[in-house]
Amino acid sequence: MKRAVVLLSGGLDSTTTLAICAREGFETYALSFAYGQRHKIEMAAARRIATALGAHEHRVAEIDLRLFGGSALTDEVAVPKARPEDEMKAGIPVTYVPARNTIFLAYALAWTEVIGARDIFIGVNAIDYSGYPDCRPEYIAAFENLANLATKAGVEGARLRVHAPLISLSKAEIIRRGMELGVDFSLTHSCYDPDSNGIACGQCDSCQIRLQGFRGAGVRDPIPYTGK
Amino acid sequence: MKRAVVLLSGGLDSTTTLAICAREGFETYALSFAYGQRHKIEMAAARRIATALGAHEHRVAEIDLRLFGGSALTDEVAVPKARPEDEMKAGIPVTYVPARNTIFLAYALAWTEVIGARDIFIGVNAIDYSGYPDCRPEYIAAFENLANLATKAGVEGARLRVHAPLISLSKAEIIRRGMELGVDFSLTHSCYDPDSNGIACGQCDSCQIRLQGFRGAGVRDPIPYTGK
Repeated sequence: MKRAVVLLSGGLDSTTTLAICAREGFETYALSFAYGQRHKIEMAAARRIATALGAHEHRVAEIDLRLFGGSALTDEVAVPKARPEDEMKAGIPVTYVPARNTIFLAYALAWTEVIGARDIFIGVNAIDYSGYPDCRPEYIAAFENLANLATKAGVEGARLRVHAPLISLSKAEIIRRGMELGVDFSLTHSCYDPDSNGIACGQCDSCQIRLQGFRGAGVRDPIPYTGK
Repeated sequence: MKRAVVLLSGGLDSTTTLAICAREGFETYALSFAYGQRHKIEMAAARRIATALGAHEHRVAEIDLRLFGGSALTDEVAVPKARPEDEMKAGIPVTYVPARNTIFLAYALAWTEVIGARDIFIGVNAIDYSGYPDCRPEYIAAFENLANLATKAGVEGARLRVHAPLISLSKAEIIRRGMELGVDFSLTHSCYDPDSNGIACGQCDSCQIRLQGFRGAGVRDPIPYTGK
C-alpha cells in the first residue's frame, strides 16, 4: 500500500484533503503542528479526525512560533498575510507563521523520507487565501521540484509529488467534496476564538468563512456555536 | 545596512560562512538549531562565535528530531546520508535529520521575512558531503526559486538569494578562507563525541575531516583534543 504524508490542521480543508488521500488508496500519515495557545483545541480536533478517517499514524510537531519575535503581526511584511486585524480583535495571539507552508512541507518531506513515501498532501486553497503567496500552484510546483532535488529517492529517479487537491476549489465545493467522501464535519474546528469548552464563536473571520461555505454548499454546519 | 540570515552550527563551515557574510557588508542574523544531546556544546560554540563575529542577533530553534522515529538511522533512505556507522560507533544518538537543510532553510526563510531581509547564507559544501542531495548547487537554486515564490517580497519583485559560498571549496580551502577573514577557529566545535568538558575526541569522523582539513591548509588546529 502506497504511503502519503498529509498535513492536518483539524479544519475543513485539511480534513477533506485527508479524506481525498485515503480515497485515492494511500495509507495515510497525518502530520499536525502545535504552536501558540490555540493548539489544544486544534490538536484535539486533528486527533479525532485522524482516527475517524483511519490514518495509519498521526504525529504532532511542536513549533516555537515566538522564535522570531512576537512582533511578526506588527511587521509590515507579515500584516497582509494573516488577517491579523481580526485575530487581534478576537484577542488571539500571533497565529501567523512566516514561511508557514514551507516549514510545514519541510517537516512533511522529512517524514516522507523516513517512511519511504513519495506523496505529500496539503489542503491549500488559492481562492480563500488569495493573499498568501505560498498557496499558489506555482509555489506547490516549486516545492515539489525542491523535494525531488533534496532527497535520495528523488535523485535516484523516484518522482515525489506534492498534491494540493483543493487548490482551485471554493469553500462550498470543498464542503461538498468532503460530504461525498463521508467526512463528518462535526469533528472539525475552525474558530479563532472558541470558548473554554472549545465551542466556536461564530463571529471571527474563520467562523464567517466556514459558515458562508456551508451556506454556499446548501448544508447545515453540524458544529455548535456559542452565539446561537 | 542590508540584513542576512546565516545558518550557524558552530562548526568550521558555518563559522566561515558567517565571516564571509559579515565581510560582504551584511548585518548578520545567526540562526542555530538545537536537537538531540549534542546541542549543549554545539550551541555554546555557536553563541561564542556569533558574539566574536559581531552577529546582530543569534537565535536558537529547538527541533524535535525524534518526531519521526528513532528508526531514521536504520532506515534505508537515511543510511547513506549521515555517516551513521561512525556516529553509532561513537555512541552518539541520531544526528541525521531527514530533509535537514530544507527544514533549516525554511526556518531561515521565516526569519528573513520577519526582519525584511533578502539574503540567506548556508555553509553547505558539495565536496565533503557528496552523498547529500541537499548540498548540491541545484538544490540551493531550487530553494532560492521556492523562496521567491513563497514570500510577499519575492512576489513583489524583490530578489531573495540563498548564498552557499563554500559549496565548491575543500575543507582546507574553507580553513584558509576563514583565516584570511580573521576567524578564530579555537571557538568552533566539530566533534561528534566530546568528553564531558566538551573536548574533542580526535577520532570520530568529524574530527578526522577537520584535522585533515587543517593539515591540508598547513595550519595547526587550535582546539585541544583528548587524545593528544
